[in-house]
Amino acid sequence: MPSALPVSLDDIRDAAARLRGVAHRTPVLHSRTLDALVGAETYLKCENFQRVGAFKFRGAYHAASRLTPAELAGGLAAYSSGNHAQAVALAARELGTRAVILMPEDTPRAKLAATAGYGAEIVTYDRYTGDRVALGAALAAERGLTLIPPYDHPHVIAGQGTATLELLEETGELGALVVPVGGGGLISGSATAAKGLYPGIAVFGVEPEAGDDTRRSFEAGRRVAVPVPRTIADGLAGDTPGELTFEFTRRLVDGIALVGDEEIRAAMRFAFERLKIVVEPSGAVGLAALLSGRVAPLPPRVGVLVSGGNTDAGRFAELIGE
Amino acid sequence: MPSALPVSLDDIRDAAARLRGVAHRTPVLHSRTLDALVGAETYLKCENFQRVGAFKFRGAYHAASRLTPAELAGGLAAYSSGNHAQAVALAARELGTRAVILMPEDTPRAKLAATAGYGAEIVTYDRYTGDRVALGAALAAERGLTLIPPYDHPHVIAGQGTATLELLEETGELGALVVPVGGGGLISGSATAAKGLYPGIAVFGVEPEAGDDTRRSFEAGRRVAVPVPRTIADGLAGDTPGELTFEFTRRLVDGIALVGDEEIRAAMRFAFERLKIVVEPSGAVGLAALLSGRVAPLPPRVGVLVSGGNTDAGRFAELIGE
Repeated sequence: MPSALPVSLDDIRDAAARLRGVAHRTPVLHSRTLDALVGAETYLKCENFQRVGAFKFRGAYHAASRLTPAELAGGLAAYSSGNHAQAVALAARELGTRAVILMPEDTPRAKLAATAGYGAEIVTYDRYTGDRVALGAALAAERGLTLIPPYDHPHVIAGQGTATLELLEETGELGALVVPVGGGGLISGSATAAKGLYPGIAVFGVEPEAGDDTRRSFEAGRRVAVPVPRTIADGLAGDTPGELTFEFTRRLVDGIALVGDEEIRAAMRFAFERLKIVVEPSGAVGLAALLSGRVAPLPPRVGVLVSGGNTDAGRFAELIGE
Repeated sequence: MPSALPVSLDDIRDAAARLRGVAHRTPVLHSRTLDALVGAETYLKCENFQRVGAFKFRGAYHAASRLTPAELAGGLAAYSSGNHAQAVALAARELGTRAVILMPEDTPRAKLAATAGYGAEIVTYDRYTGDRVALGAALAAERGLTLIPPYDHPHVIAGQGTATLELLEETGELGALVVPVGGGGLISGSATAAKGLYPGIAVFGVEPEAGDDTRRSFEAGRRVAVPVPRTIADGLAGDTPGELTFEFTRRLVDGIALVGDEEIRAAMRFAFERLKIVVEPSGAVGLAALLSGRVAPLPPRVGVLVSGGNTDAGRFAELIGE
């Protein structure tokens, strides 16, 4: 019998209590047009409306809130392709401490500006040549900061799981849940919450085709690395699943679907024109998988996490332009 | 003592009962960033999430639902620069009858497609030379259809007022309410609901500078016409207030603010990048007035109607492009 996973439904409930009044309880959207296209009643948990524009605030704030007073006073550090950066920056501000963020130099302008706007110091590196894990560790050690990892930590995973807790409180039992997969923090927390509440729910992850490290790892039964992906879904451009998050994925997830950049663009356009919401490429992969039939067969009622909405208007115009 | 206005708070409550389960109860958004910029707690009633993407569905469905069975069986007609067209088309479909819609030939592509998508027949005319009122009346007479007016009717006004009823149920008392003004249906219903519930609330209308017919009429104390406005806010491009709606405006509204196209663009961009919502130009004028300080002084808590979100992605990119 395998040892228990280090995050339980109760841990996610505890995280939800800490996040109350700090994180937004984001809306769940429903559209008859979408139902007709997907072929199932589809409920979108809109974390693009979360503080900092993405679910990442849940995990970052929850993890930071559990540091000792001394750790917290020393300040926070993070490495991130974007949304986790803003999440740690805002968590630091909310908890009265400083943050230093290591960000790829090709990060979208809006994300750099927003992170600086929360009062964080930004240090940049080259995403294609630098090792962010080593750079982040060095930065934290040099300056006495505590690193808030982007996904591979029980407190981060428990925080991310609170979005699904809220979704299922609102919808009741669903037959399937569809979740974007980058490092795996969101799907780990989501699957824990979903299967804790409704053991029969099927949980599907979605990755960009160019960054199918979790799919390959899932099929191989062990963590596999891929070349650094080049995809419009910049938030999902990791090259290998987390060690801890892969354990959750391997044990709790039912399948991993892949979507191409064109399908992501079409989903962003659909969200814009029909749902009236702004979704960033990484945030749209779950919706893209449903709209393009990549998750099948579908039960009558499905939930999907729309994980973020941080794209500036100019970049959006480029992406969805004809 | 002037005669009573033909729509009361109770009429709006009756309309709300008819709309229950048919119209969406749209979300009320709140953003700390927006509060800081506006200088007041600001609550956005998001009718861009309404069915057909605009508040217009409330009034159209409510008015159509009050026709006799014979009138309804003959079919509906409407003239509209866009959202009312979709609203009548969908109301007809929901009520099991047909709709014929007279639309300006320069209507944005997305609105034409969406109207046809609800199963309506579309007849086009030249907005700068044709008289839509006369054309609409002729069309209705020829084909035995019942015209659903876009704003100047008590049943339409009562339906539009339900958005403010929902907003105030959620927020409690507000010091001011800011409402886009085209023909005046939305502000007539909104002011009736708002002052019925909280007599001390200040109600402000907002128009595009190029289409300031209601402001001029408000100042003159009688209905004034302006040349057909050329503004990006195509839904507010009427040239004179409605006869009935102007009575409501004159007696219930506290002031009319004006915003320029650049302020509208900035508000659309803000909504996109910070609020993650898609707002069409006409729907953004209330937000634009608040962001540019055109409504002052402001009480501590303010509501604003975001009245619609129908803009296709390509048109949006043109409008907010740098």
